[in-house]
Amino acid sequence: MSETKKSILDYETVALDDEKSALVIIDQTKLPYDIEILSLTKQKEIWNAIYLLQVRGAPAIGVAAAIGIYLAAKEIEADTSEEFYDKFKAAKEYLASSRPTAVNLFWALNRMDDCCRANLDKTPSEIKKILHDEAVAIHDEDVWVCKQIGQYGLSLVKPGDGLLTHCNAGKLATVKYGTATAPMYLGQEQGYNFRIFADETRPLLQGARLTAFELHESGLDVTLICDNMSASVMKKGLVNAVFVGCDRVAANGDTANKVGTSLVATVAKRYNVPVYICAPTSTIDLNTPTGDDIHIEERPAEEITEMWYKERMAPDGVKVFNPCFDVTDNDLIAGIITEYGIARPPFAQSLKEIFEKKKAHKDSNK
Amino acid sequence: MSETKKSILDYETVALDDEKSALVIIDQTKLPYDIEILSLTKQKEIWNAIYLLQVRGAPAIGVAAAIGIYLAAKEIEADTSEEFYDKFKAAKEYLASSRPTAVNLFWALNRMDDCCRANLDKTPSEIKKILHDEAVAIHDEDVWVCKQIGQYGLSLVKPGDGLLTHCNAGKLATVKYGTATAPMYLGQEQGYNFRIFADETRPLLQGARLTAFELHESGLDVTLICDNMSASVMKKGLVNAVFVGCDRVAANGDTANKVGTSLVATVAKRYNVPVYICAPTSTIDLNTPTGDDIHIEERPAEEITEMWYKERMAPDGVKVFNPCFDVTDNDLIAGIITEYGIARPPFAQSLKEIFEKKKAHKDSNK
Repeated sequence: MSETKKSILDYETVALDDEKSALVIIDQTKLPYDIEILSLTKQKEIWNAIYLLQVRGAPAIGVAAAIGIYLAAKEIEADTSEEFYDKFKAAKEYLASSRPTAVNLFWALNRMDDCCRANLDKTPSEIKKILHDEAVAIHDEDVWVCKQIGQYGLSLVKPGDGLLTHCNAGKLATVKYGTATAPMYLGQEQGYNFRIFADETRPLLQGARLTAFELHESGLDVTLICDNMSASVMKKGLVNAVFVGCDRVAANGDTANKVGTSLVATVAKRYNVPVYICAPTSTIDLNTPTGDDIHIEERPAEEITEMWYKERMAPDGVKVFNPCFDVTDNDLIAGIITEYGIARPPFAQSLKEIFEKKKAHKDSNK
Repeated sequence: MSETKKSILDYETVALDDEKSALVIIDQTKLPYDIEILSLTKQKEIWNAIYLLQVRGAPAIGVAAAIGIYLAAKEIEADTSEEFYDKFKAAKEYLASSRPTAVNLFWALNRMDDCCRANLDKTPSEIKKILHDEAVAIHDEDVWVCKQIGQYGLSLVKPGDGLLTHCNAGKLATVKYGTATAPMYLGQEQGYNFRIFADETRPLLQGARLTAFELHESGLDVTLICDNMSASVMKKGLVNAVFVGCDRVAANGDTANKVGTSLVATVAKRYNVPVYICAPTSTIDLNTPTGDDIHIEERPAEEITEMWYKERMAPDGVKVFNPCFDVTDNDLIAGIITEYGIARPPFAQSLKEIFEKKKAHKDSNK
């Protein structure tokens, strides 16, 4: 079931519709041409939505998986909690097979699994209720984390500032707000009137198709540039801060993010523009000592040589190097903004302190 | 008249065919899909070739204009040199209208005009012979300049080195050799086995469509990357030098070139990779004090929002900033390679010395 609407503002990227027992998502494969809201009830539909990138962005995938496995659990018919758990595990395996390398997918499914196992002394019906609440918690936590990051980020800039971002760490990658875009959306609510520059982000153009789209759609002042133009706008003094997301932050602050982030950071340093990494603590890996320990995925050459796999634009047979990410060395980073505050250099120490704050926060909520 | 051939190696980008009284060019609007050689005899055809970018690249346009105006002059029927010159001026005005901002177009036409005026004491038939020789000289000088730059550039690198270039300052922008590609082609003749990285160069993808094409076609080892990936290859230690062309070099060495050049240079500095500007002295303007005095052309938004003007990839109505060039500050430049040697920092002094060498060379040839 689907309906076509005019604005993404009326929808969360990923949500649970309890009334219809449905996972509701904005179909990202149709953007920026059409805004189509999908209401998915069948497991096969949910599996497909993740597999086909109708829902994308690590946090959004995690939330979709949590809601998805809850909806599967809700339909399970079982007399005992053991029988229930067997069927739950089968449903989990199925959803887990939708994107084999998506860490947040496994993280969310494992958290739901842990929750299920911890409550096997209860009846299937009681467990279903608990899984519902856990899925809602995962959803709500994503909103909370992004909002926290947004507020911390907002404290670093002034009304009227020029902000630059790369790739899409936006609303469309989370439930709402995004990470790198969270300060922009929260600032908008408070009348900050930012001028935002969005790198188009070759080869897959997430900046042009998603970030420029969601910011423009939301009424923010956004200007699209090619990835090789950030020096031009910084040299003109049009950028006061860079906010980007991240795929993994190492213990020393080195940050893997969409390829090109380290160029932006190098250029920003030259023009004295601070670079802030917007990082939910779930993306900070204290067990990874430095950026050199992060393996960088390489992707198909056709992403570069062909546009939308239709029109070839490079000679047949030419070699292509297509890394998906790069590592921004920690000396290029002014701060790492998490939901528990802003880590400043030296990061080896400040990131540890962030995790201490996180622990204290969790403990106080127990 | 046209014929389809398999390799650009058999052709100069721009040449005079005396037998057919034709301007012979590689049709660049068909690359990289088809290699089509055009043999143009009519002024309307030559005007169109420049207007439609069938011939492009500042030096190549200049040579095409020189050959074009010679072919026009050859057809002039006149009893006196005054009548001849009137008709020559009309033909010149016509060709000059093909691309209103192309400096090399005017430069070449004015040089032909000067040559014509200096010989008005001769008969039309004698003037035609002199204009033929001047057009051939402009053509041959382009080859000489590129070859000189290539030899100087080659002296800066070793066999097996990794070289990176941005945009197309290649064979296809000159008669042969190119400027930034000249060290690569000369190195190939001497078995240098370079590994070359070509930035694709958004938005118009001259790197993907032209540079990767001509180097690959010529049998060099070329790897295509997106503009945001140069840091990734430099960090891996795969790049030993950057060679780029230029649109204008200021007296202090600040260099305007295709947008993105200054990002490459900033990143190269971080990784201790020297950046060399390949600059015919005709592009060095000692009357422009610094890069701040160079006006940067901005181009249509559609170059970024639409791919080949077919498939839209950004939201309707989004603002776009599309500068055609950027300025690379002189502290990011290791050397400026001209046909009269390599200028080193500080450039304000070394560029003057280059022009002294040029003057001495011209004087000795008088």
